Amino acid sequence: MSNTWGKLFRITSFGESHGPGIGIVIDGCPAGITWDSAYIEKQLQRRKPGQNKLTTQRKEEDIPQVLSGIFEGKTTGTPITLWIPNENAKPQDYEHLKDVFRPSHADFTWWKKYAIRDFRGGGRASARVTAGWVAAGAVAELVLQTYTSIQIRAWVEQLGPIKLPPLDCIPSREVIDSSALRCPEAETSKQMEAFLQAIRKNGDTVGGVIYGCASGVPAGLGEPLFDKFSARLAQAMFSINAVKGFEIGMGFAGACRKGSEVNDIMSYEHGRFFTLSNYSGGIQGGITNGELIYFRVAFKPVATILKEQPGVDKEGKPVIIKGRGRHDPCVLPRAVPIIEAMTALVVTDFLLLDKARKGC
Amino acid sequence: MSNTWGKLFRITSFGESHGPGIGIVIDGCPAGITWDSAYIEKQLQRRKPGQNKLTTQRKEEDIPQVLSGIFEGKTTGTPITLWIPNENAKPQDYEHLKDVFRPSHADFTWWKKYAIRDFRGGGRASARVTAGWVAAGAVAELVLQTYTSIQIRAWVEQLGPIKLPPLDCIPSREVIDSSALRCPEAETSKQMEAFLQAIRKNGDTVGGVIYGCASGVPAGLGEPLFDKFSARLAQAMFSINAVKGFEIGMGFAGACRKGSEVNDIMSYEHGRFFTLSNYSGGIQGGITNGELIYFRVAFKPVATILKEQPGVDKEGKPVIIKGRGRHDPCVLPRAVPIIEAMTALVVTDFLLLDKARKGC
Amino acid sequence: MSNTWGKLFRITSFGESHGPGIGIVIDGCPAGITWDSAYIEKQLQRRKPGQNKLTTQRKEEDIPQVLSGIFEGKTTGTPITLWIPNENAKPQDYEHLKDVFRPSHADFTWWKKYAIRDFRGGGRASARVTAGWVAAGAVAELVLQTYTSIQIRAWVEQLGPIKLPPLDCIPSREVIDSSALRCPEAETSKQMEAFLQAIRKNGDTVGGVIYGCASGVPAGLGEPLFDKFSARLAQAMFSINAVKGFEIGMGFAGACRKGSEVNDIMSYEHGRFFTLSNYSGGIQGGITNGELIYFRVAFKPVATILKEQPGVDKEGKPVIIKGRGRHDPCVLPRAVPIIEAMTALVVTDFLLLDKARKGC
Amino acid sequence: MSNTWGKLFRITSFGESHGPGIGIVIDGCPAGITWDSAYIEKQLQRRKPGQNKLTTQRKEEDIPQVLSGIFEGKTTGTPITLWIPNENAKPQDYEHLKDVFRPSHADFTWWKKYAIRDFRGGGRASARVTAGWVAAGAVAELVLQTYTSIQIRAWVEQLGPIKLPPLDCIPSREVIDSSALRCPEAETSKQMEAFLQAIRKNGDTVGGVIYGCASGVPAGLGEPLFDKFSARLAQAMFSINAVKGFEIGMGFAGACRKGSEVNDIMSYEHGRFFTLSNYSGGIQGGITNGELIYFRVAFKPVATILKEQPGVDKEGKPVIIKGRGRHDPCVLPRAVPIIEAMTALVVTDFLLLDKARKGC
Repeated sequence: MSNTWGKLFRITSFGESHGPGIGIVIDGCPAGITWDSAYIEKQLQRRKPGQNKLTTQRKEEDIPQVLSGIFEGKTTGTPITLWIPNENAKPQDYEHLKDVFRPSHADFTWWKKYAIRDFRGGGRASARVTAGWVAAGAVAELVLQTYTSIQIRAWVEQLGPIKLPPLDCIPSREVIDSSALRCPEAETSKQMEAFLQAIRKNGDTVGGVIYGCASGVPAGLGEPLFDKFSARLAQAMFSINAVKGFEIGMGFAGACRKGSEVNDIMSYEHGRFFTLSNYSGGIQGGITNGELIYFRVAFKPVATILKEQPGVDKEGKPVIIKGRGRHDPCVLPRAVPIIEAMTALVVTDFLLLDKARKGC
Repeated sequence: MSNTWGKLFRITSFGESHGPGIGIVIDGCPAGITWDSAYIEKQLQRRKPGQNKLTTQRKEEDIPQVLSGIFEGKTTGTPITLWIPNENAKPQDYEHLKDVFRPSHADFTWWKKYAIRDFRGGGRASARVTAGWVAAGAVAELVLQTYTSIQIRAWVEQLGPIKLPPLDCIPSREVIDSSALRCPEAETSKQMEAFLQAIRKNGDTVGGVIYGCASGVPAGLGEPLFDKFSARLAQAMFSINAVKGFEIGMGFAGACRKGSEVNDIMSYEHGRFFTLSNYSGGIQGGITNGELIYFRVAFKPVATILKEQPGVDKEGKPVIIKGRGRHDPCVLPRAVPIIEAMTALVVTDFLLLDKARKGC
Repeated sequence: MSNTWGKLFRITSFGESHGPGIGIVIDGCPAGITWDSAYIEKQLQRRKPGQNKLTTQRKEEDIPQVLSGIFEGKTTGTPITLWIPNENAKPQDYEHLKDVFRPSHADFTWWKKYAIRDFRGGGRASARVTAGWVAAGAVAELVLQTYTSIQIRAWVEQLGPIKLPPLDCIPSREVIDSSALRCPEAETSKQMEAFLQAIRKNGDTVGGVIYGCASGVPAGLGEPLFDKFSARLAQAMFSINAVKGFEIGMGFAGACRKGSEVNDIMSYEHGRFFTLSNYSGGIQGGITNGELIYFRVAFKPVATILKEQPGVDKEGKPVIIKGRGRHDPCVLPRAVPIIEAMTALVVTDFLLLDKARKGC
Repeated sequence: MSNTWGKLFRITSFGESHGPGIGIVIDGCPAGITWDSAYIEKQLQRRKPGQNKLTTQRKEEDIPQVLSGIFEGKTTGTPITLWIPNENAKPQDYEHLKDVFRPSHADFTWWKKYAIRDFRGGGRASARVTAGWVAAGAVAELVLQTYTSIQIRAWVEQLGPIKLPPLDCIPSREVIDSSALRCPEAETSKQMEAFLQAIRKNGDTVGGVIYGCASGVPAGLGEPLFDKFSARLAQAMFSINAVKGFEIGMGFAGACRKGSEVNDIMSYEHGRFFTLSNYSGGIQGGITNGELIYFRVAFKPVATILKEQPGVDKEGKPVIIKGRGRHDPCVLPRAVPIIEAMTALVVTDFLLLDKARKGC
């Protein structure tokens, strides 16, 4: 139940970190979309491990195989299944964690839920499953590129205490990727890198904030009351591992603002309605208003640290836990394409719903 | 589609601000729960307008009528429908807004979505519809009280720039309600009142933050991957009017923390696993861990202000807009029971799902 | 959960036979449809009790009140709620059945499911709830009439052993209604009436078959694999009280036919593909092919008979049960508009889905 | 959307007849169920092609690979994915059908729906996809065997004009399989075989009826109103290729019976309620009553015949169509395990729902 997401453009996720692989079924993709495997692989490359010395050294090619749904280079309207084999799984690295509950991991909670748990690298709770989401998000982008000029971007805005100042314009993915940390401003990126190197050397980890946005989204998307655009975007973001906060538009900063300061005054020119400011983040009453949709996602620090920490095992006996294996000191750079993917899925699903809402 | 929420404990919301009334259908409530209309009315009283001079002066009794589902004082397992007639509707107050798009309201977006719109007091986009949710949340609490000792609370933590310092313990609803602003600390509450009076006199409005929590929730609730407890709680909160941010546990503050600082170390005593700290806010890997669930919800300022603002009408012509009618300078005190209601719904739905997950 | 039906055009049903009334929430109706209350009432009149001496003598006007969703004579895209008060409820007629399980009723099964049961006239298990469905189906027909030339019809084809010979053309609702039994052929109708009078005088009841059809439905509706048009139509029909069989096209008769006899040969003329025969009933591979959709629905005899029958009470003690109150000797004439309503709902829901399937 | 089935025990189907293979994702299977691959393979063997000279000669081993969800021999509560590679695909056999609409196939309807179609062996419309359903149904049976003593059986009751007389008891699967046609009575089976041989030699095909049943299902399963046990069973059966009719209990035969004849009188003995007859087929008011659930499913003849038939191509030009490749003269023997699988899925899903319905 819980491994399926979406109303009309639906994904079903399966697979574990150290099992045979990771998969995704995409159901509801319009027929006739030209298949662009290079595009999908490109987004997966942005998420894959081992990109540089600041990410985990697990080596995975993450080239998806098409198991169904594509025929003669086009989508057919039937379920598209992508399968990403696990190549560099090292389950033995996790044998020592078999009976142990690591701090701030899903070990204890999954065990309480299922009374059984694939402990190898987090099993199903691993962020490795998001590889399938990134692939699905890239397929959603193929749909968006076929029918619209919608553009989706995300980048690292904050890493630990270091914050990116406001940008003048939306950077391209190339610019974003020119930073190892996917922070599209050279000076800030450098500071973040230095900070992260220090954190890493110390065996520690750090959190941060990703800024995401979608431009070109038409007004009228979102389904009141419970499937507001903002509500489903929030849910999608909180599906991502380690996410602890989400805000749209002015977000938490709006708490100490006055209505007279942050009301987005409307105007009209050249046949188009628009707002003079965009404190709302492109969403009013839960529905898109045609302005830029922008939001922030807060990540907690990676729970696995290369330091000793006290813990307990299944019997409740005290143990000392120390991270081994291959871990990221900070998930944010690799989370950028995940956030883009979930955004693309939300937008695509709402676009399809909107067609139905316009009558038959 | 979008007016139904929940998997097993489901609500369907209907009604408009200045139509005949507001209703809610609750489907999936277990049979045999003792009906306590006083309890439901009590929560509705906390949401209703006209509670004091700091809220809108619209007069509504908000006593729900039972249209279905209750027999001989008990729930029967069939849909429970509650109907709250609109008594103090004044549609004529809104005639001047018929063709106008107010800033930061849902006027423009609903019009773009539906090409028709009940402009009377926001119609379906009005927060008045949350009366039904509060009623449904109270029914969910009756279920929780029947089977568990789970307690749900919310209060105002920030109003404009004024913030409540951390509390030592979870206050009772009585204590919370002893403050006109539902801020359970006398000194801070007084400051907030003074601040809000000034804002109000100036015809302005302000945002804020509500703190919500649930104690006694068992470990193991939440459905990975896409129906994580945190993901569905986020969605539920973003269903509420004017919400622009949501964070759980350390939330955005976690962005600048290190793993070594905020990992929640586990321990075991007297047959019970627990964590020594609770930066996670009771959620790990999207699943409850048995600790206190706590979170924060950010509200933007009320969009309707009693000052003149420029705007446009449907034809794109400039107009001057000034709020009339009866409006809150700040929605937070009345949003407290709404947040409690949505939390109760999320918890109840997951509890029922958990039963199914344990096998048949 | 189970009281909501539909993907995009959704209905949520509530109410009991002898409670305050019967209601329906319609969510997902396109905005801007002209509201025609006369049309809705007309269909409800066809279902209402007391139409003639061959139906129950319960007197209900069944005029629905609009609780939400209509503004200035049009649908607004928000949930439409219709409420039909119970006026002629006589709960005291059922007091003697409080602890008794009648044969072939839902008494025992509902009690096993919920351990509590509103015994007054079947409570929620009563066919009275279908009043709401008929209202919703009429709204769906308003949508169909706005956008398409789809026509939906149903009539009584078999009552007990008396069968209607094949018709040359699809009769109008007026012709169908000119028969008290809604059998649109005078001679057969007369025979059915005579048969039913005899059954009724004897305190007995009888089953039958309703023929339903939809013309003008475009090719391409239906969602493989599990939401085939035929699969969802079957489900919709089995939602109706007393239904025990459903077949589409040649149905059960196809079991003893050869492929060479019943394959529907395709042809093409004047820019249109069509089939020379229609054994498939307008559905191939679960999807509509543009031909007439036709199907049959089998009803068992009404379980309540005015004769003594042995039974048991909740304690397992033998009792004698004899129907009292106001009952139909045969449900079929009043079931005709119910079948039309469910068909209209299925068609409308698929039409909206089809829009989304065509891409964004 | 449409490729996912179920509320709590959910399957998502993917794959095409002549693509890489057929897959199924099972989401919501309780954790801790002992994995029995032999049991799953056994059911798949009953469905697989090439079993004897009366079925298609396509050679497929149909041994499923586990892609996810099983750990150390047990289910983990995460999605179980089974993958059945296509080994004997011969897409070239279908090249001549590329632009042709075969009679009574899904060719035309899928083309109208998607404007693109994998013509190789029916693509996604092929009954080959049911291999995944049979695998999923076997997993559901593992759940049933873990928690209950529910038994599910199906067999061929009618093939063309030859009908099996009523049986005294429910035969075992071994007895059923001892007949090449899965008709568990030697004499009738022989007649059917002779009949089918004649049909086959003539290049023709024939329809039939399968009888299905489930014993040991507890009373109280089924969700009124729209998710009645019978309604969801009907939907599940109509998901199967070539199904044109479904009836439960007395079904269509009840149309000409009187209430006094077919009411199922209740009785009580040894602490158990039961009915003296079972015309209802174990379902009353849409809910199980604890008696044997039995039903019949009507299949039309296979559309592909080895005779020449007129047809049209995409341009509307007349063509002559003659089946080639490897086809069954009658699908019924191989459909038996499919019907068992869908029944097992319905029962399991409702059992899990029932747990949730009993309160938390």
